[in-house]
Amino acid sequence: MKKRVVTLGEVLMRLTTASNERFEQSDSYAVHFGGAEANVAISLAKWNVSTANITAFPDHTIGKAAFNYLRKYGVNTDYIKFSDGRMGLYFLENGVMQRSSKIIYDRFDSAFSKLDPTAFNWDEILENADWFHWTGITPAISASASQICLDALTAAQKLGITVSGDINYRRNLWQYGKSPLEIMPDLISKSNVIVGGLTDFENCLDIRANSYEEGCRKVQQKFPTAHTFSTTQRKIISASHNKLSAVLYKNESLHVSKSYDMENIVDRIGGGDAFMAGLIYGILHKGDQGALEFAVASSVLKHGIPGDANLVSLEEVEQLLKGNDIGRLLR
Amino acid sequence: MKKRVVTLGEVLMRLTTASNERFEQSDSYAVHFGGAEANVAISLAKWNVSTANITAFPDHTIGKAAFNYLRKYGVNTDYIKFSDGRMGLYFLENGVMQRSSKIIYDRFDSAFSKLDPTAFNWDEILENADWFHWTGITPAISASASQICLDALTAAQKLGITVSGDINYRRNLWQYGKSPLEIMPDLISKSNVIVGGLTDFENCLDIRANSYEEGCRKVQQKFPTAHTFSTTQRKIISASHNKLSAVLYKNESLHVSKSYDMENIVDRIGGGDAFMAGLIYGILHKGDQGALEFAVASSVLKHGIPGDANLVSLEEVEQLLKGNDIGRLLR
Amino acid sequence: MKKRVVTLGEVLMRLTTASNERFEQSDSYAVHFGGAEANVAISLAKWNVSTANITAFPDHTIGKAAFNYLRKYGVNTDYIKFSDGRMGLYFLENGVMQRSSKIIYDRFDSAFSKLDPTAFNWDEILENADWFHWTGITPAISASASQICLDALTAAQKLGITVSGDINYRRNLWQYGKSPLEIMPDLISKSNVIVGGLTDFENCLDIRANSYEEGCRKVQQKFPTAHTFSTTQRKIISASHNKLSAVLYKNESLHVSKSYDMENIVDRIGGGDAFMAGLIYGILHKGDQGALEFAVASSVLKHGIPGDANLVSLEEVEQLLKGNDIGRLLR
Amino acid sequence: MKKRVVTLGEVLMRLTTASNERFEQSDSYAVHFGGAEANVAISLAKWNVSTANITAFPDHTIGKAAFNYLRKYGVNTDYIKFSDGRMGLYFLENGVMQRSSKIIYDRFDSAFSKLDPTAFNWDEILENADWFHWTGITPAISASASQICLDALTAAQKLGITVSGDINYRRNLWQYGKSPLEIMPDLISKSNVIVGGLTDFENCLDIRANSYEEGCRKVQQKFPTAHTFSTTQRKIISASHNKLSAVLYKNESLHVSKSYDMENIVDRIGGGDAFMAGLIYGILHKGDQGALEFAVASSVLKHGIPGDANLVSLEEVEQLLKGNDIGRLLR
Amino acid sequence: MKKRVVTLGEVLMRLTTASNERFEQSDSYAVHFGGAEANVAISLAKWNVSTANITAFPDHTIGKAAFNYLRKYGVNTDYIKFSDGRMGLYFLENGVMQRSSKIIYDRFDSAFSKLDPTAFNWDEILENADWFHWTGITPAISASASQICLDALTAAQKLGITVSGDINYRRNLWQYGKSPLEIMPDLISKSNVIVGGLTDFENCLDIRANSYEEGCRKVQQKFPTAHTFSTTQRKIISASHNKLSAVLYKNESLHVSKSYDMENIVDRIGGGDAFMAGLIYGILHKGDQGALEFAVASSVLKHGIPGDANLVSLEEVEQLLKGNDIGRLLR
Amino acid sequence: MKKRVVTLGEVLMRLTTASNERFEQSDSYAVHFGGAEANVAISLAKWNVSTANITAFPDHTIGKAAFNYLRKYGVNTDYIKFSDGRMGLYFLENGVMQRSSKIIYDRFDSAFSKLDPTAFNWDEILENADWFHWTGITPAISASASQICLDALTAAQKLGITVSGDINYRRNLWQYGKSPLEIMPDLISKSNVIVGGLTDFENCLDIRANSYEEGCRKVQQKFPTAHTFSTTQRKIISASHNKLSAVLYKNESLHVSKSYDMENIVDRIGGGDAFMAGLIYGILHKGDQGALEFAVASSVLKHGIPGDANLVSLEEVEQLLKGNDIGRLLR
Repeated sequence: MKKRVVTLGEVLMRLTTASNERFEQSDSYAVHFGGAEANVAISLAKWNVSTANITAFPDHTIGKAAFNYLRKYGVNTDYIKFSDGRMGLYFLENGVMQRSSKIIYDRFDSAFSKLDPTAFNWDEILENADWFHWTGITPAISASASQICLDALTAAQKLGITVSGDINYRRNLWQYGKSPLEIMPDLISKSNVIVGGLTDFENCLDIRANSYEEGCRKVQQKFPTAHTFSTTQRKIISASHNKLSAVLYKNESLHVSKSYDMENIVDRIGGGDAFMAGLIYGILHKGDQGALEFAVASSVLKHGIPGDANLVSLEEVEQLLKGNDIGRLLR
Repeated sequence: MKKRVVTLGEVLMRLTTASNERFEQSDSYAVHFGGAEANVAISLAKWNVSTANITAFPDHTIGKAAFNYLRKYGVNTDYIKFSDGRMGLYFLENGVMQRSSKIIYDRFDSAFSKLDPTAFNWDEILENADWFHWTGITPAISASASQICLDALTAAQKLGITVSGDINYRRNLWQYGKSPLEIMPDLISKSNVIVGGLTDFENCLDIRANSYEEGCRKVQQKFPTAHTFSTTQRKIISASHNKLSAVLYKNESLHVSKSYDMENIVDRIGGGDAFMAGLIYGILHKGDQGALEFAVASSVLKHGIPGDANLVSLEEVEQLLKGNDIGRLLR
Repeated sequence: MKKRVVTLGEVLMRLTTASNERFEQSDSYAVHFGGAEANVAISLAKWNVSTANITAFPDHTIGKAAFNYLRKYGVNTDYIKFSDGRMGLYFLENGVMQRSSKIIYDRFDSAFSKLDPTAFNWDEILENADWFHWTGITPAISASASQICLDALTAAQKLGITVSGDINYRRNLWQYGKSPLEIMPDLISKSNVIVGGLTDFENCLDIRANSYEEGCRKVQQKFPTAHTFSTTQRKIISASHNKLSAVLYKNESLHVSKSYDMENIVDRIGGGDAFMAGLIYGILHKGDQGALEFAVASSVLKHGIPGDANLVSLEEVEQLLKGNDIGRLLR
Repeated sequence: MKKRVVTLGEVLMRLTTASNERFEQSDSYAVHFGGAEANVAISLAKWNVSTANITAFPDHTIGKAAFNYLRKYGVNTDYIKFSDGRMGLYFLENGVMQRSSKIIYDRFDSAFSKLDPTAFNWDEILENADWFHWTGITPAISASASQICLDALTAAQKLGITVSGDINYRRNLWQYGKSPLEIMPDLISKSNVIVGGLTDFENCLDIRANSYEEGCRKVQQKFPTAHTFSTTQRKIISASHNKLSAVLYKNESLHVSKSYDMENIVDRIGGGDAFMAGLIYGILHKGDQGALEFAVASSVLKHGIPGDANLVSLEEVEQLLKGNDIGRLLR
Repeated sequence: MKKRVVTLGEVLMRLTTASNERFEQSDSYAVHFGGAEANVAISLAKWNVSTANITAFPDHTIGKAAFNYLRKYGVNTDYIKFSDGRMGLYFLENGVMQRSSKIIYDRFDSAFSKLDPTAFNWDEILENADWFHWTGITPAISASASQICLDALTAAQKLGITVSGDINYRRNLWQYGKSPLEIMPDLISKSNVIVGGLTDFENCLDIRANSYEEGCRKVQQKFPTAHTFSTTQRKIISASHNKLSAVLYKNESLHVSKSYDMENIVDRIGGGDAFMAGLIYGILHKGDQGALEFAVASSVLKHGIPGDANLVSLEEVEQLLKGNDIGRLLR
Repeated sequence: MKKRVVTLGEVLMRLTTASNERFEQSDSYAVHFGGAEANVAISLAKWNVSTANITAFPDHTIGKAAFNYLRKYGVNTDYIKFSDGRMGLYFLENGVMQRSSKIIYDRFDSAFSKLDPTAFNWDEILENADWFHWTGITPAISASASQICLDALTAAQKLGITVSGDINYRRNLWQYGKSPLEIMPDLISKSNVIVGGLTDFENCLDIRANSYEEGCRKVQQKFPTAHTFSTTQRKIISASHNKLSAVLYKNESLHVSKSYDMENIVDRIGGGDAFMAGLIYGILHKGDQGALEFAVASSVLKHGIPGDANLVSLEEVEQLLKGNDIGRLLR
């Protein structure tokens, strides 16, 4: 039977300069949509998981275009609100060679950030769900978004649904008067699967450690609901060439994935979300090491796809896992 | 000797769907910049007038791209500020046939709207200027923008510089707590050349009339500094086919321009600003009827040029005025 | 309460040369999807009608892309099959000026044309439907498609659902060994609202007449279930300039619509389907003359939109009907 | 049996700004090739006439690209030379509405202009030819090009081949020290079918007249080999909207063609060459009035096709002549 | 004296998604043409070999566009037929990084596959030819295509022309009721130069071996007319990064080529055909090892060129062979 | 206080084929502008140095577009002349993999090459300048350009301004009757900072050496004004993959820079000019080794930016120097 995963989070319009151009040069932007949580929902929907992304859009035709984008890729849009506020945006200059990628965010006062927490009936939304996923971006956006996240987690816990949280600490958000240390511990305490690294633990949970294992052990001691921890390890040779692997900590043991050499990167935005989607899929359908390897392979494939979403099939991830059909010509 | 014209106003990034596509269809936007006053400055700069546009941009590379845009077309950028706030945006779906053009504005909290009025030293900026131009968009944006406009007008009046104001009433601006009736009369009282129609007079000056002549006469009675009034008259057959003419009222007489049949319209945004630029140029270099005809011909040519700015030469406007070289093949 | 309309028919990929280029010149094709019935379903979905398009796609990622296209615009895809066969295609060279538009069809052996009629359970599909729509393209494709259409009509009639049929006679289809005269009368006999002109009546029903009224009267005599007849009247001045109106015959009286002058046509493909959608919407929500005028206005707007589908809102059609906001600049 | 037509003349690379942009705006140029005489050759090749264009290209891969262009459209390239000199260029800004099209030529020192006249063996080239075509552009380019033209005409006359000359006076060519009055009379004296208007007669033959008939009569008196005269009559409403007709004078009588209303012009470059090709085709296959009407219809269709060449079939011209299939949707 | 090479085979239209996009994302396809044998013909034509590709196209303007493509690149088109049937197509998603390239073929019922074998007079076509080239794709398409191939080989053998066959086994063709084992041995028995690897030998000739040398020896024993065998060896690190070398077996000795490291692959389609063309050119103009090295260098360059055809000059291949000018900036 | 650097040299329009296409394939060219010296001026302007490029453009709107390009990026254009002559051009096919980049120059008879040397008043132009920069391209263009360069150097020397010369030997220029050996020594004798390698020394100064140090020592002996020498060292693995380092010789010691591995090169044109700009900036603001490292880092970043100009900020170069933020995702 199909699993059901619910995600919560804002979807932004992304505007990318053409052909490696800089903002000063470009007179045309490619239009994509994306959001850390919606990216997870789209990945899972492509893998035959039933998903819904809970969010809000401005009530105009660009908001409708974003809504259609989710619908196109099979994400359930029944609970999405059209409400007051802007369409959140980000401008992207894709890096190449030694030059970094640059994002200019323009997301304040978005419809999602201004939404009344009572807009969502979480008991209804989460009915029959197997999994709920949130990221640290949502509580960083606004007090109401933070409240929405807390409401969802509370309902999920009550319903016994597995909760994953991707800490995803972003210094330049958190501008509504609260610090992550005031907000995040409460949310982590209601989560089971935690994606984050040592700097995330430090900035959001005030937990310091010398190794990932130590860090996870300390988080688990403080937040015993959390039982699984994972993070990717990216070695950056250039914007076009990275190496990627990941680790997963559970039951006091650390699993280490295969490492992939990623030359000729097309688009690294969403690489972390592709990992997250793979982890959720893997945990729902495979064992821990299987989940970890599936997640890394999923993330590797994302780096070759333009846009935020990881538009790859289950078969493509499986083949990469097996080492088959890598970079071949399939007729 | 070269005339010097100073304009004040915000420059927005414009994002236009490709090839008549609707927002729901388009995955690429053309990037232009534009602003009612900057459009005037660029037109005049192309006609060998020395111009400066006074404005502010966000301090990032997209702000710098907007700055470069003005510089490219020869507008002086010495007084432009880089400051806090967003880049103001608007999304455009160009109309065609019976379908209207749609603009979705996204300009609140822009760098310009948040700028401290003391940022500009108007005595220095207006030194040696022959003309100062403002529009009703600036006082509609924010209290500080309104104050900046008032400061500029006060300085201009003190320096004896001719002032033009394009009333340009926009209902969906004016959201900072003031109504146009509280703000505009003071600004109009310091202006000499007024562009606006009867609805502008009504909404911004609370003056009602049955004819344009009557309206102008009443405005002049209340604001004796104003001596010249003008407005375009557009007959819309479809988004692609308009007829355009204009009138100018001065010294109790009404001048009426030639009417142009505009088939195959490419881009009507900035048509009014091209008229305004033509009017300023004409008044500085020609008589009243000459100014009016020059302004209309300038505006007609704008409708055939993509983007906000009227990138036509003096010779091209003059040839259209004379009825030469209209739509020919010039080798 | 939302109406529910079910349509049946093939969706083709359309490949259009760029910028008025001829096939011999073009090295890039724009990709759209479209089908006479799916175009109707998308229009209605945009107008808040619940719709489903019943069809089949090849079981590969291009078939999935077509499926996603319907999903994006809100058409229910629950009953769509992925099965053996090709993706039906058509190549389009958009006409301009005196040059005609050219279509090269490449649709034989498509998944839809080869589908087993037992694939669909019509009682389930049509549950709660208010309307079923088919066109003469479906029975022209293959014996099995013709059977599917007949099955659907039989079920619809049994369930008392209103049925519309757009005769849409295409000489170059009908290659599977049956002539329209052998097939169409049976289908028309189970339909209530008939869209077609005198040549359609002649080719598909063997009914000849000297006027549309006479033609409708004769069809109605032979097929008493049919109670409403309509057809558009297009005057072609050039590929870029048409005039459009329509007539509706019901209860022995002929309604004639307003005529629109369509200059600067962008894309006339789907103009008839936009009319059909307007007619269905109108009959479900307005009187006969209201339906007719709504249908023509809908069709006019389609001519300004690239692709097969009429991506306009209810408000836009209503405004055109009222003569408001035609070709304006809406801010 | 297939007719054989030989043309002589330079082929230029044309660089056109995108989407109605001005040179100051455009960061991408469309690349086409064209030349007055090669355009004629391509038209005729599409109509099943055997053609060769005699010319020269620079010996590099852009010269090869121009060569391939002719080959692609079926023009014989056996006699083309690769030699020293530049690729001739022209930059084009396509006009629209009241704005004129602008051409900036950059063709001096081209390979063709510098070619040694002995490079061509005209007796061999013209073997079995039915027609030879030249234009007044060739003798205007350089002394050697002028000599090549004279050599060709001498050979053609000797072989009894019909010769057409399109006077095509261009003031800004003729920079090698000779005036048209020194060169053109000799060339016209060896030609049979003359395309040109009264200003051409005046500038190139020093013949003045008050009517086209009078002008033709005077030219014929002075150059009795010339027996047929023709010219198009273009009424320019805007760059996007022209009216086109033509006249043909022969045996003391003047034939006048049908007039066409050309709205929504796509590309008028090559319109005259499409007329010329139609005239040659018509004279070879139809009577005088037939030739004239065919030529005008051919020219009308060219205005809807991007690039210099008239990529239309014989059937398309014939249908326009008959008034069928004008601007329809052909499936 | 120029060599003459005749190739036989279908030309398909190739439709490629833009910028690494997946089929689900792309709304624009790049249009190319290609065919294993026509690709060979174009390569050779660029190297001053006289070539003809024998094929058939549908009798419409897209068929004509394919015909023009061959003509553009200098392939003789005199023997090409326009006949009933579709234009064969394939859809391509170019792989990048670890993601494979995907081809969706849509080539059944093409004009070529349905052509009557009596359409071609092989004695006339092969007159003065030095070489005939076929691939295993042709006999896999249809019974008639297989017969055409056999007719050509029979005529070539009779005329003493060298014959090359590229086995090119494709499992998803061969759908007309014959297996390769029933057809290929007869064709190989009439061929001299065989390109294929061990799996080709197994699938098409039922010959198994443990090394390439053993395989060639066994094939040669069974088909003594075959005297030269060659195959490329591709090591796939990713879709963007391959290593390429090749071997050639003749007179009981195995030649091994230099290996090239191919980073930043642009388009690998046609890489094998570029190798084949290089081999033919090399055998006609160089010794065996020279032919092998030329063939590999030709194939390497193809990987940097968009489209199916290897548009490189003789000099470029020679420079790569010598190790000069690799990746430089040539002014 | 802001430094002021004046550069002298021609600006060309660059026309680049799209997407790695060859000239034979491309029907669209990207339009950029560039010149060895203007590229330096733009780099420096982006780093807060006051710059002017002294040059001439043809007096038409394409010349104006080139002028606007410099203005856009903040280069002072006050001394630029509009004069007779062509716009110099170059056509570029960007190399990839083992395929070289190809440039076809088309720059003879440009406005700059034909300019009268008296057009410039160098005492005025160089007032308050800290640095003057020239390259060996200018004296290679024409006798008058050579004279202009000499005049500028004479004035600079008189005013005590530091002079840099990039020898930049180009065999295919120097076509006006002088050899570099007749011209360059005089110019080098008035220069202080020399960029060039051993082949430059040999071709332009007739100085041969076995090592760079020896070469520099010999140049310095002959031209004692020259005190600093530098050159880049590029190892070409493929067009897409180079390694880059550089050396600087001063005061009898040789500084060697860090070496960078440049995979995925986007555009290497202007790499040398980016180095030159970095060297000037470095010498004006840092020590010798600092200047060298800054110059190499600047050049590395250029390879990732489309077009001739190095549109990177000071901060980006500094970060690369420090090894921070290399190829990251900066939010």
